[in-house]
Amino acid sequence: MHGFITKTIDLRNGTPEAKRREILEYFEKTWEIDEKLYSQLNSDDIFYHRGDPLRHVLLFYLGHTAAFFINKLFLAKIIDTRVNHEFESIFAIGVDEMSWDDLNEKHYNWPAVSAVHDYRNKVKELLINIIQTLPLELPITWDHPFWIIMMGIEHERIHLETSSVLIRQLPLNEVTAGKFGTICTESGEAPKNEMLPVSGSEMKLGKKYDHPLYGWDNEYGKHTEEVPDFKASKFLISNGEFLQFIKEDGYNTENYWTEEGWNWRNFKQAQMPLFWRKEGDQYSLRLVAEEIPMPWNWPVEVNYLEAKAYCNWKTAKAGKTFRLPTEAEWIRLTEVCKVPDVPDWKTAPGNINLEKYSSPCPVDMFKNGDFYDVMGNVWQWTETPITGYAGFKVHPMYDDFSTPTFDGKHNLIKGGSWISTGNEATLHARYAFRRHFYQHAGFRIVESETPLKIQNDEYETDTEVANSCENMWGENSATNFSKQLAQEILEITGKPQDLELLDLNADTGRLAFELAPYFKKITAIDFSARFIRMPIQLQEKGFMRYIVKDEGELVYYREVVLSDTGLDEDKDKILFMQDNANNLKPIYTGYDIIVAPNVLEELTCPILFLKSIHERLNDNGLLIIASTYDWEANNIKSEHWPGGFKLDGEPVTSFDGIKSILSENFTLENTPFDLPLMLRKSSRIVEQRLSEVSIWRKKQ
Amino acid sequence: MHGFITKTIDLRNGTPEAKRREILEYFEKTWEIDEKLYSQLNSDDIFYHRGDPLRHVLLFYLGHTAAFFINKLFLAKIIDTRVNHEFESIFAIGVDEMSWDDLNEKHYNWPAVSAVHDYRNKVKELLINIIQTLPLELPITWDHPFWIIMMGIEHERIHLETSSVLIRQLPLNEVTAGKFGTICTESGEAPKNEMLPVSGSEMKLGKKYDHPLYGWDNEYGKHTEEVPDFKASKFLISNGEFLQFIKEDGYNTENYWTEEGWNWRNFKQAQMPLFWRKEGDQYSLRLVAEEIPMPWNWPVEVNYLEAKAYCNWKTAKAGKTFRLPTEAEWIRLTEVCKVPDVPDWKTAPGNINLEKYSSPCPVDMFKNGDFYDVMGNVWQWTETPITGYAGFKVHPMYDDFSTPTFDGKHNLIKGGSWISTGNEATLHARYAFRRHFYQHAGFRIVESETPLKIQNDEYETDTEVANSCENMWGENSATNFSKQLAQEILEITGKPQDLELLDLNADTGRLAFELAPYFKKITAIDFSARFIRMPIQLQEKGFMRYIVKDEGELVYYREVVLSDTGLDEDKDKILFMQDNANNLKPIYTGYDIIVAPNVLEELTCPILFLKSIHERLNDNGLLIIASTYDWEANNIKSEHWPGGFKLDGEPVTSFDGIKSILSENFTLENTPFDLPLMLRKSSRIVEQRLSEVSIWRKKQ
Repeated sequence: MHGFITKTIDLRNGTPEAKRREILEYFEKTWEIDEKLYSQLNSDDIFYHRGDPLRHVLLFYLGHTAAFFINKLFLAKIIDTRVNHEFESIFAIGVDEMSWDDLNEKHYNWPAVSAVHDYRNKVKELLINIIQTLPLELPITWDHPFWIIMMGIEHERIHLETSSVLIRQLPLNEVTAGKFGTICTESGEAPKNEMLPVSGSEMKLGKKYDHPLYGWDNEYGKHTEEVPDFKASKFLISNGEFLQFIKEDGYNTENYWTEEGWNWRNFKQAQMPLFWRKEGDQYSLRLVAEEIPMPWNWPVEVNYLEAKAYCNWKTAKAGKTFRLPTEAEWIRLTEVCKVPDVPDWKTAPGNINLEKYSSPCPVDMFKNGDFYDVMGNVWQWTETPITGYAGFKVHPMYDDFSTPTFDGKHNLIKGGSWISTGNEATLHARYAFRRHFYQHAGFRIVESETPLKIQNDEYETDTEVANSCENMWGENSATNFSKQLAQEILEITGKPQDLELLDLNADTGRLAFELAPYFKKITAIDFSARFIRMPIQLQEKGFMRYIVKDEGELVYYREVVLSDTGLDEDKDKILFMQDNANNLKPIYTGYDIIVAPNVLEELTCPILFLKSIHERLNDNGLLIIASTYDWEANNIKSEHWPGGFKLDGEPVTSFDGIKSILSENFTLENTPFDLPLMLRKSSRIVEQRLSEVSIWRKKQ
Repeated sequence: MHGFITKTIDLRNGTPEAKRREILEYFEKTWEIDEKLYSQLNSDDIFYHRGDPLRHVLLFYLGHTAAFFINKLFLAKIIDTRVNHEFESIFAIGVDEMSWDDLNEKHYNWPAVSAVHDYRNKVKELLINIIQTLPLELPITWDHPFWIIMMGIEHERIHLETSSVLIRQLPLNEVTAGKFGTICTESGEAPKNEMLPVSGSEMKLGKKYDHPLYGWDNEYGKHTEEVPDFKASKFLISNGEFLQFIKEDGYNTENYWTEEGWNWRNFKQAQMPLFWRKEGDQYSLRLVAEEIPMPWNWPVEVNYLEAKAYCNWKTAKAGKTFRLPTEAEWIRLTEVCKVPDVPDWKTAPGNINLEKYSSPCPVDMFKNGDFYDVMGNVWQWTETPITGYAGFKVHPMYDDFSTPTFDGKHNLIKGGSWISTGNEATLHARYAFRRHFYQHAGFRIVESETPLKIQNDEYETDTEVANSCENMWGENSATNFSKQLAQEILEITGKPQDLELLDLNADTGRLAFELAPYFKKITAIDFSARFIRMPIQLQEKGFMRYIVKDEGELVYYREVVLSDTGLDEDKDKILFMQDNANNLKPIYTGYDIIVAPNVLEELTCPILFLKSIHERLNDNGLLIIASTYDWEANNIKSEHWPGGFKLDGEPVTSFDGIKSILSENFTLENTPFDLPLMLRKSSRIVEQRLSEVSIWRKKQ
């Protein structure tokens, strides 16, 4: 396999023509090794079999990696003609991410293997031509056409690995050994494992956008996490160690399993890892294309649910807390073990990149620092469900690579396996699978008394909340109502520093954040907890995410990072609370300024509010009302409207009505003026509301 | 009464200080005669009685004419303090316009008469002060503060007459005769009436906005109507003539009555006119404050329903068509009889303006040309329900004076009565009442074979239709989508003159009207007849009216006059038709240009439309699509969307999807561009949609 060894490309340094040659070679080797993988199938018939009942037939993957190139080049408008419209449809979408209890009932009319090979050849020819002729200047950045070519190559390398897992699931008599490199032949008893200390550190995760290597969108951004000291097992957990869990009836003891794990175990009736075989008392291990007597000193390969059950079994036995590492702990381990990243390799620092074996190998063979297999051998499950780091942006040409997995149900695997190449072999690689899913993956355990804190940064999909985020925090700041209102308020109040302000329509918090630097304390109330959990997230995590509509079913993924807005320093002066502005708790009183931004029209009884709000305000305090006067009879009984009706036959405008109610306790301070409030509904639809701002001073 | 004779003021000619004195005198005389009217009540107690069970107690009207001044001055911000907040509420709204079968169940706590007199005195003092001190420059136009003062005066003069009708309905023992001028004492047998010819003419109705006299908003505008030759009765119908109808059982013969009339007759169990009394065989007549033996030669006073029944009885007997005059016929009668208008009077041309009697008088006493009582004696019912003339605008300080009566249920009375003064006595006066209502009103009959054509120009209140009118025809033309799209179309097509165009979303028609001058023929289709009846009205009547929301329940009344837009000349090139753009009738074919403005997103199946629309188009013809791509899953099944979804995992934009469907039969002609479409929802809410315009040429 040595002729196939490659590394992912440095996209920033070098000359364009040398880069063009490098990329062409990288493409050709990727294409070739992908096809070589399927040489392990006994015959073309096997292409129509499934390695896993929940995945496509193998032929799909042969076509898919080629069709992907064309689909992305077409989408990016680098090409304007398709190679084969039909193939680029049927080979478009994998069935990778479904639940284990969700059966694929679809029927496909798969073409002949030879037709797919013909198709691959045409695509290959086209790609070689494009790589040779497309204008190329360095650096190759996200929006560079060659980024799309790198995307296709790295995508094919992912499938090299995932297809090898599918082939590993075929019946043994359908595959031929020895066609795809050399397996490790060393095996023996499991070495005695031990827990070694790892010093903690403040970890800064995430890749910069100017990093020289290709990366998937989920690798970029910034995430800071404090990792306390912990202990980690010197070796990956071996088959030998895992056997003890089986012997102690681990697969039949519900207590060891998470609820999700136990459900899976029952559905599968699992009694041992998927690739284990048992005949009488003899265990053996299925590799990709052969079975070997169980190598007890190789890493056990399991899913997350099994790994977690093992940890819980071990915790129960030892009275100490064992679990899997978090992503940050795994990164910390690479730091203390000084594991080099791909550009610094002469050779791979472990059984990875197809540089050593075409199989796992003993857990005590490749050392990194005091530990073994920090990189390579098999992937290592972590406790961490994948999310984007703060600053995450979706790559527009592959907008569903990452975001569908940001659901709290996909855990990261780290470290790569013997067949992980290209981007997969980099330290920054972040792949994540459903927790029941099988890859060439095992685990290392850690011991830590620090409670596990799992981030869950889903994209807000509640349309109203997400639209509010966009309106308050989106990029179109020229029409940002909250920013403009804040400026108007500060012009009136100066920058008092020692005053307390009550915001009665916090919504997703922009106004409060804008005002926080200039006030002693801000209480920001919203009627709905749905809304204020977003600014609370901004306070706690520093970012929030949401989805807004483009057109039809198409969406944009948005992220707001508080520090990017410059509003993070005084965030802790704000207290976001859920309450009803029409029925506030008694504690909300004694304010110097009360702001009611577009909240009158949302109250059950605006009149009651106007009659009583002075009670919450200090003498000489200011009441600032912004309102669109949009009294809808469906929401507010007309007898509760302050205006917008005829009284004694004459029209009473909303403003006049408000003035007449407030004049008992307030004097009007300004000439009311309009501020526009833009409510985005989709890329082509925006509602503009004019909100009138009036400022009232409480009489003494 | 001669000391009280006034005429409404010329508001354009003269000097400011003379005008100020004139207005002050007009105000003071109005005030005084209004109070004098109530001197006919026997005691203050009678103020708490009702003349009509469906109207307020008389005290209301005493307070109302004063409170009206204050309410209007306050609304117009001429004063900023009220005189008596409570009085200005309880004396605000009359109960004038209710249906005869609608009972007033409200209870009022009416104040003491002396308190109301005190209030009137304060208001009078304030008004005198205002009239003496308010800056005054001529001319006094609609928006002039003195217009509001004139409004108050003319309003009081209306109530002078209507209150006299209420007093006429009190029991005889509650009133004292002889306190309000002198009644006519001449009476005798009814003269023989005859039908005299009146030559027809094209009549131009409506007052110009620079007319020197005060007018209510409904008097202004332009209305043209062809009046064919007709005959009119020389005299008003007398009590004597009407008696014959009663004797021939007219009140009990359903055939003579309209359905509305018969319902009223049954509800009231009416057997003769309201003010007739019958004891044994003796008839007498109730006047305002006395009863007199029936003066058979005086005009009968009835409501429209009785007058109409009389005409139908007469038609049935004579075999010729008798009816009431229309408004235009009455105006024509004033022309042929050369009846002068108020500024040209030395004395009144009939029993009007309180210049002759405080009662009706014989129908053969005051001659105008060959006819009698064209002006004065009693009002004359017409066949014409009141509407605004084309160009009608609501006066913003009294926006419900006219528009609530534009409902097809209020018929005009013309000519004035013996107590009609001020504006009421002018030729332009246009008062209208529910058809069952009583005033000092009778009728003249006309004979005409021309079918009666009643205008019915209600204000469109269907929110969607009215908003479309406003968006297409309202004043904000800078953002008028239809105008802009028309300009874009004309830039592409030139101004071809000989081509036929199909507009597939006529809506309220603006695009078709904009394009009509430059095409041979335009077919404008809309899915809904609700919408196209508006542009059809523009074609047929030259104007349309609608109501749009201001805030809360407050609205604006709008009118569009086609000739004001300059789009009237080619209106007849347009054929507005109702049809479904997704299932067009076969006749709609052979067009040179098809425009589909924002209609794709309204279709059940946009894909079907895109696949088949070329069949309607000539070779080389143009298809112009404007769309917001707003496919809503609620309206259109997602399999019918042309784009805005993911296909084979990749996003397909709406434009790309449309392009891929159309490319079989069309080539794209332009770089698609966006046009903004502003959808007004209220004064403070506008939705902006971006519609993308793409132009496609049909392949040969």
